[in-house]
Amino acid sequence: MTTFPFSAIVGQDEMRRALLIAAVDPSVGGVLVFGDRGTGKSTAIRGLAALLPKMKAVAGCPYSCDPGQPAESCPHCAKGGPRKSGLVPVPVVDLPLGATEDRVVGALDLERALAHGEKAFEPGLLARANRGFLYIDEVNLLDDHLVDLLLDVAASGVNTVEREGLSVRHPARFVLVGSGNPEEGELRPQLLDRFGLAVEVTTPTDLPTRIDVVRRRDAFERDPDGFCRGYERADRALQKQLTAARARLPGMDVPDATLEAAARLCLALGTDGLRGELTLMRTARALAAFEGADIVAIDHLKRIAPSALRHRLRRNPLDEAGSTARVTRAVEQVFSQ
Amino acid sequence: MTTFPFSAIVGQDEMRRALLIAAVDPSVGGVLVFGDRGTGKSTAIRGLAALLPKMKAVAGCPYSCDPGQPAESCPHCAKGGPRKSGLVPVPVVDLPLGATEDRVVGALDLERALAHGEKAFEPGLLARANRGFLYIDEVNLLDDHLVDLLLDVAASGVNTVEREGLSVRHPARFVLVGSGNPEEGELRPQLLDRFGLAVEVTTPTDLPTRIDVVRRRDAFERDPDGFCRGYERADRALQKQLTAARARLPGMDVPDATLEAAARLCLALGTDGLRGELTLMRTARALAAFEGADIVAIDHLKRIAPSALRHRLRRNPLDEAGSTARVTRAVEQVFSQ
Amino acid sequence: MTTFPFSAIVGQDEMRRALLIAAVDPSVGGVLVFGDRGTGKSTAIRGLAALLPKMKAVAGCPYSCDPGQPAESCPHCAKGGPRKSGLVPVPVVDLPLGATEDRVVGALDLERALAHGEKAFEPGLLARANRGFLYIDEVNLLDDHLVDLLLDVAASGVNTVEREGLSVRHPARFVLVGSGNPEEGELRPQLLDRFGLAVEVTTPTDLPTRIDVVRRRDAFERDPDGFCRGYERADRALQKQLTAARARLPGMDVPDATLEAAARLCLALGTDGLRGELTLMRTARALAAFEGADIVAIDHLKRIAPSALRHRLRRNPLDEAGSTARVTRAVEQVFSQ
Amino acid sequence: MTTFPFSAIVGQDEMRRALLIAAVDPSVGGVLVFGDRGTGKSTAIRGLAALLPKMKAVAGCPYSCDPGQPAESCPHCAKGGPRKSGLVPVPVVDLPLGATEDRVVGALDLERALAHGEKAFEPGLLARANRGFLYIDEVNLLDDHLVDLLLDVAASGVNTVEREGLSVRHPARFVLVGSGNPEEGELRPQLLDRFGLAVEVTTPTDLPTRIDVVRRRDAFERDPDGFCRGYERADRALQKQLTAARARLPGMDVPDATLEAAARLCLALGTDGLRGELTLMRTARALAAFEGADIVAIDHLKRIAPSALRHRLRRNPLDEAGSTARVTRAVEQVFSQ
Amino acid sequence: MTTFPFSAIVGQDEMRRALLIAAVDPSVGGVLVFGDRGTGKSTAIRGLAALLPKMKAVAGCPYSCDPGQPAESCPHCAKGGPRKSGLVPVPVVDLPLGATEDRVVGALDLERALAHGEKAFEPGLLARANRGFLYIDEVNLLDDHLVDLLLDVAASGVNTVEREGLSVRHPARFVLVGSGNPEEGELRPQLLDRFGLAVEVTTPTDLPTRIDVVRRRDAFERDPDGFCRGYERADRALQKQLTAARARLPGMDVPDATLEAAARLCLALGTDGLRGELTLMRTARALAAFEGADIVAIDHLKRIAPSALRHRLRRNPLDEAGSTARVTRAVEQVFSQ
Amino acid sequence: MTTFPFSAIVGQDEMRRALLIAAVDPSVGGVLVFGDRGTGKSTAIRGLAALLPKMKAVAGCPYSCDPGQPAESCPHCAKGGPRKSGLVPVPVVDLPLGATEDRVVGALDLERALAHGEKAFEPGLLARANRGFLYIDEVNLLDDHLVDLLLDVAASGVNTVEREGLSVRHPARFVLVGSGNPEEGELRPQLLDRFGLAVEVTTPTDLPTRIDVVRRRDAFERDPDGFCRGYERADRALQKQLTAARARLPGMDVPDATLEAAARLCLALGTDGLRGELTLMRTARALAAFEGADIVAIDHLKRIAPSALRHRLRRNPLDEAGSTARVTRAVEQVFSQ
Repeated sequence: MTTFPFSAIVGQDEMRRALLIAAVDPSVGGVLVFGDRGTGKSTAIRGLAALLPKMKAVAGCPYSCDPGQPAESCPHCAKGGPRKSGLVPVPVVDLPLGATEDRVVGALDLERALAHGEKAFEPGLLARANRGFLYIDEVNLLDDHLVDLLLDVAASGVNTVEREGLSVRHPARFVLVGSGNPEEGELRPQLLDRFGLAVEVTTPTDLPTRIDVVRRRDAFERDPDGFCRGYERADRALQKQLTAARARLPGMDVPDATLEAAARLCLALGTDGLRGELTLMRTARALAAFEGADIVAIDHLKRIAPSALRHRLRRNPLDEAGSTARVTRAVEQVFSQ
Repeated sequence: MTTFPFSAIVGQDEMRRALLIAAVDPSVGGVLVFGDRGTGKSTAIRGLAALLPKMKAVAGCPYSCDPGQPAESCPHCAKGGPRKSGLVPVPVVDLPLGATEDRVVGALDLERALAHGEKAFEPGLLARANRGFLYIDEVNLLDDHLVDLLLDVAASGVNTVEREGLSVRHPARFVLVGSGNPEEGELRPQLLDRFGLAVEVTTPTDLPTRIDVVRRRDAFERDPDGFCRGYERADRALQKQLTAARARLPGMDVPDATLEAAARLCLALGTDGLRGELTLMRTARALAAFEGADIVAIDHLKRIAPSALRHRLRRNPLDEAGSTARVTRAVEQVFSQ
Repeated sequence: MTTFPFSAIVGQDEMRRALLIAAVDPSVGGVLVFGDRGTGKSTAIRGLAALLPKMKAVAGCPYSCDPGQPAESCPHCAKGGPRKSGLVPVPVVDLPLGATEDRVVGALDLERALAHGEKAFEPGLLARANRGFLYIDEVNLLDDHLVDLLLDVAASGVNTVEREGLSVRHPARFVLVGSGNPEEGELRPQLLDRFGLAVEVTTPTDLPTRIDVVRRRDAFERDPDGFCRGYERADRALQKQLTAARARLPGMDVPDATLEAAARLCLALGTDGLRGELTLMRTARALAAFEGADIVAIDHLKRIAPSALRHRLRRNPLDEAGSTARVTRAVEQVFSQ
Repeated sequence: MTTFPFSAIVGQDEMRRALLIAAVDPSVGGVLVFGDRGTGKSTAIRGLAALLPKMKAVAGCPYSCDPGQPAESCPHCAKGGPRKSGLVPVPVVDLPLGATEDRVVGALDLERALAHGEKAFEPGLLARANRGFLYIDEVNLLDDHLVDLLLDVAASGVNTVEREGLSVRHPARFVLVGSGNPEEGELRPQLLDRFGLAVEVTTPTDLPTRIDVVRRRDAFERDPDGFCRGYERADRALQKQLTAARARLPGMDVPDATLEAAARLCLALGTDGLRGELTLMRTARALAAFEGADIVAIDHLKRIAPSALRHRLRRNPLDEAGSTARVTRAVEQVFSQ
Repeated sequence: MTTFPFSAIVGQDEMRRALLIAAVDPSVGGVLVFGDRGTGKSTAIRGLAALLPKMKAVAGCPYSCDPGQPAESCPHCAKGGPRKSGLVPVPVVDLPLGATEDRVVGALDLERALAHGEKAFEPGLLARANRGFLYIDEVNLLDDHLVDLLLDVAASGVNTVEREGLSVRHPARFVLVGSGNPEEGELRPQLLDRFGLAVEVTTPTDLPTRIDVVRRRDAFERDPDGFCRGYERADRALQKQLTAARARLPGMDVPDATLEAAARLCLALGTDGLRGELTLMRTARALAAFEGADIVAIDHLKRIAPSALRHRLRRNPLDEAGSTARVTRAVEQVFSQ
Repeated sequence: MTTFPFSAIVGQDEMRRALLIAAVDPSVGGVLVFGDRGTGKSTAIRGLAALLPKMKAVAGCPYSCDPGQPAESCPHCAKGGPRKSGLVPVPVVDLPLGATEDRVVGALDLERALAHGEKAFEPGLLARANRGFLYIDEVNLLDDHLVDLLLDVAASGVNTVEREGLSVRHPARFVLVGSGNPEEGELRPQLLDRFGLAVEVTTPTDLPTRIDVVRRRDAFERDPDGFCRGYERADRALQKQLTAARARLPGMDVPDATLEAAARLCLALGTDGLRGELTLMRTARALAAFEGADIVAIDHLKRIAPSALRHRLRRNPLDEAGSTARVTRAVEQVFSQ
């Protein structure tokens, strides 16, 4: 199936920037997208993944391990021996609401295991998502049990499946991308907290943008290949920029002033713990790297502050129209001092 | 069992038009019919399917794949080799409220699979509905778990069945037709949104229509074959019109003015996302094709706007007597400007 | 066990008439009997079935198929070959509240099926009820899951049992007779609607009738055979009348005036859909046939209107003392115009 | 274990009379005893059973069939052949609240059945209670599912066990004796109605009676055998009276006046259906037989009216202190007319 | 593990007396201890059991049957043959809140039974508690299902385990000791009633007692053996007193005046049934025996009246601060008359 | 994975002290940490464990028994024979919220057991935690069933797994460390009571501390090994202090005055039972030992009183901002007397 090009997306700047930042530095944590249905969230994630350079993976490894640095916890690559590798697309895996636990974490076939004396593990969605994206639409409606499970895996980067005495561990590092309409159910604070960035998408309200979106969508569906050719160049440019940013990232330092500004901002907003500051610092650094900046400036911080903090305010910020405004106001107060 | 002829249906114009539009272009999405019990919803769908030209299908394929273009995900046709084909009626499959998950998605016989080393999959209702209609009476009472499942399949056109490490995928593209009485339970917004068109049926209130309906029903039940002969011609004419519309559809373009009108209408109504506009455009196009028009005119748009939009208004529109009126009023305001 | 003779029942005219009408034309739909406990509902149904002429059935067919017209869906008779037949009593099957699904729909023995490669189906209560009566006492307390199941079967006349990939279908056409006390739980509108006729039974309040009932019951229990002999003649006369009515039914037509009257009555009462009119027409026709009338007169309509309509009024009619009165009042208004 | 003698019970006349009546004519239906804990309900039932003459039973029949008239539904006795018999005590079976369904109805061992091609049925409590008493303490706390089951069996006298296609039927006729404290949970009307008689027990409030009860209990526990010897004679006299009453019962007729009085009483109280009158008639007849009377007099009726009717008044009579008073008042009004 | 000596317990006189009474005459029924956490309830029971003389038990009997009088229901000892015996400590078994039913009643291994044709029963906690103590901490939080089970066993002294047709019975006579904090959940009246005695424990409020408790506890934990030696003599004296009381008990009679006083007390308090009087009588007798008295005096009655009656007052007495006060007041009124 | 050094933790003095005390004397009971997310709780525990000297453990023992004193209940070490041993790190085991019971307590493989006649036990998390730390994040959201289980194990130091007649016991002594945000769910009082110490953590509010924390975290993540080297010396000093404290502990006595002060404090606060005093005494002693003091002074008591008592006040203290204040005030009042 042909994918709608990332660079053909109209508007939704905050969402696109958050996804790009997560692609530059996955350690910023996942991206939570909330807002109206039908605003192209799924399209954007698929487009971003298609845009990313293919990645080297150990041939036959169900977790697509990096041949240069296979995961410690990979049961396939741990066997040692020479490993062939190949290029595979960055995976985007959908976790549907109705998925069973077995489908998500993988299934351990006890009977086969008992009969043949070997671990018979059928990898699940988490295995397929390793080194890519795990997308959960309507994450706020997800079963509590699966949420607990995901929190475990997201925290450790490892998926552990245990059934009656058998146990399998495998790497499961992915960028969690969730979307949901807060009007239809709140996210548990623990899951909220796990997302590095939270962005809002809204239906565009100006006529030309709307017509532009529908036109592009229509054109794409009528002639996918022709449409894509028109955006090949823009996509290639973006890809280059991403690759450059990833290379620059390890070398970038965060100046004292920026760090202090981040702390003051969080203090002003009264966020719990220090995860807010850490995320601010990393996000600003990734943005600066993406934009080719030499230093991580306070301006970078200011621009990504709403994405990094709006879901960390006391009282579930998604309930209040004002959470974005509160962050913005705090940014102004702190940085005008 | 003889089917009541589609062209013998009295009244219920909006429902009949919506079903015909979905037959011209299945990509408009399913049809939701809400209103009183005993108003011939099931009869209309069965009549429409019987009216449609038989379709070519790969012989022996449990998913009735199109021999010219078998589904990528078809496990039967994927085996390659020469394929025989034959003509089969367009399927109409009932999904009863009490159906188990196994019956809907198909059953995977693990023991047979383990014993014989082959996938033992017994296709379910979704398999049978491929390329036809899936009808759910009282869709608003459907178990949440099945709703989630259907949403998944409807979005992807593919049914994935996974049980303890075994997995089967098969094509499942169908026009979802749901009916329900909103007084007896609301539809979840996610399911509402999935329906392209939503139409209302009501019990006719004028005496002659009512007598006409009962008379025809009585006549049909007493002598089905004789009754059907009386409508053969009308049905054949409709069939021709449908076939012509399908052929004309790919070549039809939507003029700028029509597209802009659609966007303004949705903006005026404040629908979430842009799915409203896309549906308006496709529905108007299918209607124009069906009516043999040369261009997709604003008038086409106006006529199908209530069906395409009434279920997309904020606050579950089914609850309010006023949702149809709101769309109509918006149509008037937007198009009088 | 000897059965209490139908013609020995004292009073309860409406219930008896409804059961006789359902025996003349089963297509009027089932009979719902509501009212006090201990008013002989179960006795009446058993008496009616015992009164009916025995029916021809294919020998060995667990569904008692008619040898002249075996059901399409009968797995036993579908095998073809010459068929012996015999006379069997019309079945009356009790569906107890505590029945498991397996007992109702039949059980599919998977292990036997797997081991011997044959379908091992043990028919259930629905199989036994084919061509007879299915009686559910306290139908309003029936488990929702069984209600869904019965609705499915009642609508299609076919029982489909599916378990993990195995599937059995068999005919299951029966007159559903339900009873219940509305004070102890409402019927879901969908189940209500499925009953053609709804009748009320009450404890007789005049002394002689009560004494008469208890006397007959006492006499019956002390000497069942002697008691039955006293009513043999009356039962035989009723049986003859039923047989004659069934023979006359296919030839009877409903005059325009009667049909129009039915439509006006339903319109006045605001019943949902047109099922009310269809039932009125069929019930009046069956009554006329039973009474040996030449035409279906408005008087027939008027007499059965309460039974055919009282459960079709908006707002669950069982809740309101006034539903019968509303029908009667509408009958008067419509027919005095 | 030695049983406390029935004739050593102090007070609780109504309960004792009700149990004796049920022993004379089991068809009056079970006995419901409600009132305080620790008032000797269980003791009375055990005492009554021990008092009854041993009954002849088919040797080896797990249902203790009467050799002269084995139950139609008995799978053991149905095999025919000569039958040995012996004398066994009338069974009193406790149905504990925590009992599983398998323990109550019996267990069907599917694996054994499949392996050896025979029905492997392990009879349960209902089997053991056949021809005796089934005692349920705190019947108002019994699981709904078991209540449904008991209602089925009590109505038919037959226990049907069905598991995945296997089926066993056996006789299960017993006097149901239930006890409960209405303050701790109401009985469902359907179960209430199933009891022929309902009696109240209360803690005695006069000092000598209380001391007498405790003394006897203490004496019994210190020297069971010595204590029992003191009541042997009284027990034997009661046993003789019971045997005589059972012999006299079939020949007793109920005069018109008594029957009419019963009907007027029920009419005055507005009991549902006619089960009240039937029970009154049977109970009065059994009492008259027990007392050696020649005719069933109105006085017999008056004395047992509270036991036979207090649980048949509209609104659960157990809730209202006034139900006994209402019956008594009605008795006075009806019989003074 | 060394046990804290019973005679080293500081304060909590009522609890200690109740446990000693239950040790003298287990037929008084169990002991319910309610009050604050951390007041040494578990310590006291363990201490008491360690203090009791070892009991003779059949070697190898999993129910520790008395060799002189093995339980009728013991499957082990019922086999007959010569029996070896030995001395075993009186068991104290903890029933933890989270225990599964299998762990409590024992597990019946169906597969082993079917395979080897023998009953494969693994005795549970009830088996281990036979002839000893069953301790349930937080008995008011115990699962309802387990409560039902315990009530059954406590009433009959026999544990019956039935699984799909297999059945095992074994003796299970024990003193039930429950503890709980009534603020965290009420006891069902049926369970309350089953306890012979109910005592309150509170945290001591005077400084020296508290320090004394902590000191002893500390001393014990630092040097268990040394600590125990200091109380060996006191424990031995108590043991002697207990043995003497048990020997004296069967010969003790309760004078008329004491019995009448008990009845008047219960009458004044309005306790349900006569269990209150029976318990009063037995408890007073056991206390008199323990204290070496010649007769059971009214003074014995007065002293144990609160323990024997406070949980038998109408309205759950645990809820009201006043239940003890009500008993005391009644004692004063009755005995001053 | 490199661990963040314990001595590099900034602030959170109360938590660090509580953990160190628990490391000196595990018998003080677990540590409950409540407060904001993202305040380094998990980091602290891991740091502490890494700091502790490795412990000697029996090689191959899945419970890491101490070779010098293997647990009585250890099924591995109970087999006797010469035992090899080695040094292993003190375990820190995470108990995730979504863990199944099998994963926590270990799994008993019945089929393997039956097939091979040996106990097939797969140790679970509790086994791995033996002699170390069991960490439960969001302990207040833990499933009630697991809580019951943990309470059992924590009380006895032994984990008993029983499945259908098989049973395994193994040592499970660990320091339970729980954390949670009381705003998201209360702890059951029984679980609260089980924790020896309860400490609060809050997000630091002064700018330099916050910046310091983020800086250290950032430095650690960029160069874990380099960062750790900088704290090696401080960690080693702490380790030495801990080892010395453990050695000094058994010889330390608590003077009378201190004990009395503890009792007076608890009396003033009205804590239930005497567990408060015992914990105060032990905690103060461990603190004194850690600080190298000669005697356990009242000052030690005062300093740890909030940690030892704040969760023992009536009414769940976590709900009230004032519980710490109440303890502090009581300390002042008691010690100024």
